[in-house]
Amino acid sequence: MPSTRHSNTVYPTTLYLSAPEMIRLVRRKGLSACIAGIAARIEREFLRWNDFDKSARVACHSDVGTIELMPIADAAQFAFKYVNGHPANPLHGLPTVMAFGVLADVATGAPRLLSELTLTTALRTAAMSAVAARKLARADSRTMALIGNGAQSEFQALAFRDLVGIRELRVFDTDAAASAKLAANLVGQGLSVRICASAAEAVRGADIVTTATADKSNGTILTPGMIEPGMHLNAIGGDCPGKTELHRGVLLGATVFVEFEPQTRIEGEIQQMPADFPVTEFWQVLAGHRAGRTSTAQVTLFDSVGFALEDFAALAFMGETAAELGMGETIALLPHTADPKNLFGALRLQPQADPRVFSGNRAVPEEAAA
Amino acid sequence: MPSTRHSNTVYPTTLYLSAPEMIRLVRRKGLSACIAGIAARIEREFLRWNDFDKSARVACHSDVGTIELMPIADAAQFAFKYVNGHPANPLHGLPTVMAFGVLADVATGAPRLLSELTLTTALRTAAMSAVAARKLARADSRTMALIGNGAQSEFQALAFRDLVGIRELRVFDTDAAASAKLAANLVGQGLSVRICASAAEAVRGADIVTTATADKSNGTILTPGMIEPGMHLNAIGGDCPGKTELHRGVLLGATVFVEFEPQTRIEGEIQQMPADFPVTEFWQVLAGHRAGRTSTAQVTLFDSVGFALEDFAALAFMGETAAELGMGETIALLPHTADPKNLFGALRLQPQADPRVFSGNRAVPEEAAA
Repeated sequence: MPSTRHSNTVYPTTLYLSAPEMIRLVRRKGLSACIAGIAARIEREFLRWNDFDKSARVACHSDVGTIELMPIADAAQFAFKYVNGHPANPLHGLPTVMAFGVLADVATGAPRLLSELTLTTALRTAAMSAVAARKLARADSRTMALIGNGAQSEFQALAFRDLVGIRELRVFDTDAAASAKLAANLVGQGLSVRICASAAEAVRGADIVTTATADKSNGTILTPGMIEPGMHLNAIGGDCPGKTELHRGVLLGATVFVEFEPQTRIEGEIQQMPADFPVTEFWQVLAGHRAGRTSTAQVTLFDSVGFALEDFAALAFMGETAAELGMGETIALLPHTADPKNLFGALRLQPQADPRVFSGNRAVPEEAAA
Repeated sequence: MPSTRHSNTVYPTTLYLSAPEMIRLVRRKGLSACIAGIAARIEREFLRWNDFDKSARVACHSDVGTIELMPIADAAQFAFKYVNGHPANPLHGLPTVMAFGVLADVATGAPRLLSELTLTTALRTAAMSAVAARKLARADSRTMALIGNGAQSEFQALAFRDLVGIRELRVFDTDAAASAKLAANLVGQGLSVRICASAAEAVRGADIVTTATADKSNGTILTPGMIEPGMHLNAIGGDCPGKTELHRGVLLGATVFVEFEPQTRIEGEIQQMPADFPVTEFWQVLAGHRAGRTSTAQVTLFDSVGFALEDFAALAFMGETAAELGMGETIALLPHTADPKNLFGALRLQPQADPRVFSGNRAVPEEAAA
């Protein structure tokens, strides 16, 4: 991260990755390289699970959606993500999920990276799903049903193509335009895409079933009669209290894997089940401490709600990639003071120059501080 | 807040107030006007206490400091502050406390204001202290002892001058240079300032005693023998587990007022006391539901730790002031997409132009998305 010398001290600055800059970054690095890079970083961080100070996220629920803060830290870095979930947002021209986040130094508390995370969340969610499926799905999985064809769907498709070997998609959405958009976006991507008339048709014969729907309700996108032996279910849409996608009978028939159990008990599909319903934290499988899939007939379910450690991994990857490509810009989120005990003095002096050019003509005469 | 028309929808943008821009804003509006404005806003928000979804802050503690997230929301707006507390930071040229925060729409989750809060936290802490003292201190209070002469001290002095009528300060710090800095900064501000050789000397005969020290330890800046009848104690330095400033005997001899009881039980001076030690939430006094000071001989104590509602108020005031003065700049924290369900499509198109000029030569050739 960049630093600025100031009054004989090295003053940490904050690197800012805006949404348009992140789009440029992903275009330059390549989408597949970003998904693979985040996936590798997620595996690396999950393998040192016990190094992290973990907590369930802090949520603010309203009738129309949720706003959440997702903090996590190891001994060196603190990260948090701000993220919302508002299913009706597309009616107002806004994404359902919007996010940004920060990486900061634990030693000083200084924020070092401020980044958009709307696009990045889509990438890290897809990367996490694929990392889990690589361990939990049958190794010969080639066909995936994709229920819910919104903003997340293309990223799931490409992550599963690259990291799991999926070659055929069967897609369904209650909004036919969403499916058409998905199919159009995937032209030329090495995937055969069939738009189906129902979730049941999409699921029939699939090796992997991904549900990524947005309704904040207790849905039953998947019912027990739709599930076939050996399937891997990747349930990513159920992620807050009152928002589930699977009939509880599906859970009863599956071996269930979760990210961080205390959070998933509140937010995941298993919120429908008793508190002692057996689940396995996925990192245990990754680390070889617990079994993943044990037979080709077993139904495995990754009950994914999105965990702060995935954002920690994604922020770290994006920050390093920005440094590698010389992207992003330095912002002055913190005041520079010659004497840190003299914040008041900063009001008396001419304000520091911003590290970058302001737009507009903001230069105005300034009055004395007091 | 500004909005941008895009594809027939009004797309909310985020107003960014950097640290240098905030310094300019405070200089233009005037420091006294800012403190008074935040104080008025704090009173207004505290009077509708039950409209807010409140929670104790989320803290990440390390050996050298704390990083906290402080969320709060009403039906319309969600706010959070990121803030650290690292007492050794000045040795590295960094402020002990650094902060930034966000105001967002509850209806959509869109962040509307991203602001520095390092300077703003100093202003709102001073405003909160003065709002409390105006209700709790004796009306004829003119003399204040100020123990701890760091970054917060000038703002406390000026807030108490403007809002409480303090005319004389007796200051002490274990760092004599900090006291000299405070005295120099207050020249010409209508305050008589005496630098004292000890906390006891500063406190003797004072109407109000403010403690604003930074050590993360169980300190005893004030001991029972120093306390005189009728004093108001404004204890702002004790604000996390293991960080207190007052001997417990001082608490036993005082009527204690707090911001948000569940948080103060963990973080405040009263962390030293049993869970049933009586306290009054200050909003109850403001609303007339509970008594404040009931006699001139009573010792009142505002055990202040800093509550998210104060930051909510400060963010709202600063956002409105920026709008009034035409300050701040629009940033693209969120991606603009013609179709919110087509985030992937944003990678395919030329990225949107940033709403402002980038510094440096970031324009680089871009590869295809996939």
